[in-house]
Amino acid sequence: MATAASWKPLLLRALDANAHLKQSAFFQLATIGSNGRPSNRTVVFRGFQEDTNVIQINTDRRSAKIEEIKHCHFGKICWYFTESWEQFRINGKIDIIDGANSDACKLQQREKAWFASSLKSRLQYLAPAPRLPDISNGSGEENQLDPSEGPVEAFCLLLFDPEQVDYLNLKSNERFIFTSRSSEQGFKLWMSEKVNP
Amino acid sequence: MATAASWKPLLLRALDANAHLKQSAFFQLATIGSNGRPSNRTVVFRGFQEDTNVIQINTDRRSAKIEEIKHCHFGKICWYFTESWEQFRINGKIDIIDGANSDACKLQQREKAWFASSLKSRLQYLAPAPRLPDISNGSGEENQLDPSEGPVEAFCLLLFDPEQVDYLNLKSNERFIFTSRSSEQGFKLWMSEKVNP
Repeated sequence: MATAASWKPLLLRALDANAHLKQSAFFQLATIGSNGRPSNRTVVFRGFQEDTNVIQINTDRRSAKIEEIKHCHFGKICWYFTESWEQFRINGKIDIIDGANSDACKLQQREKAWFASSLKSRLQYLAPAPRLPDISNGSGEENQLDPSEGPVEAFCLLLFDPEQVDYLNLKSNERFIFTSRSSEQGFKLWMSEKVNP
Repeated sequence: MATAASWKPLLLRALDANAHLKQSAFFQLATIGSNGRPSNRTVVFRGFQEDTNVIQINTDRRSAKIEEIKHCHFGKICWYFTESWEQFRINGKIDIIDGANSDACKLQQREKAWFASSLKSRLQYLAPAPRLPDISNGSGEENQLDPSEGPVEAFCLLLFDPEQVDYLNLKSNERFIFTSRSSEQGFKLWMSEKVNP
């Protein structure tokens, strides 16, 4: 039996129950690689976009995932909470917001995400391009950044819009699948079904 | 500069440094879903296949990943160690060993993996098919299993053979990419390159 329900309160509860663990904000984001093979990496949860279900992720525009997402904008989050033994597997579409975006509102969101990051996080976007050969010889030159300066070119905000959530609780041994469909008014309606774990 | 090296000692060291954390044996395995979209889930590391680099994973033959792997046998492991801040991203090919396998040696490996699992783990393979609607009404009937009984039909061993490893150490801020090629004698030669994190 499918019933109307939402997965977001479950995720907020898991975040709260695991808040004392730094890694509870980390999850794995899978995409399709440019060669058609699966790709996967750990990223940091940067909160929901205001009151929506949209999950925010910061990334470097020079990282491989940007090309991958341009090629196939579907992603799959796997988020395992080590303390509460809960797993959220989330299918969704990813929107890339870089500095060249033509939507003023999205550029504002990107700027907001930039200033919400620590100065140390921001400095990473000034480092040499990820995955290129390290030619620093260990010199480790220090970049400087004015804290009031807006997002640098390499800074990119990803907006992950969930379409399906597969929730597994290994303590209670329960599993629910939440699926969405768009209403006539254009907003998402969520249904849930209890399935075998 | 690419130099001969291997990633396995790094992974063994990380496993050792994080051994006191139960979740250090968990990683995320991405595959390509039947619909061509990315798929991702947490699985348990069941050790290496003897003295090789091949990573063992147990799974239920009725789970979606089996159909996915039959369709596209490439996988990507993302393994983040929360204590030592190390990430291993591993590309590889996956071989499925179920009870219908025609190779006696592989069937033996499957049997070995079965008996290496706890009795509690083994019982999961007797449970109703994962992801189908839960029609138990909470009755939770208990299955019985003779500890000396061999693998049940649903039990499946996955053998993940690494082809490339992307290693990131967030404490030392170092990243190495290990790539393999087959030698004329048919064994894998590994090279590593230091790249920007």
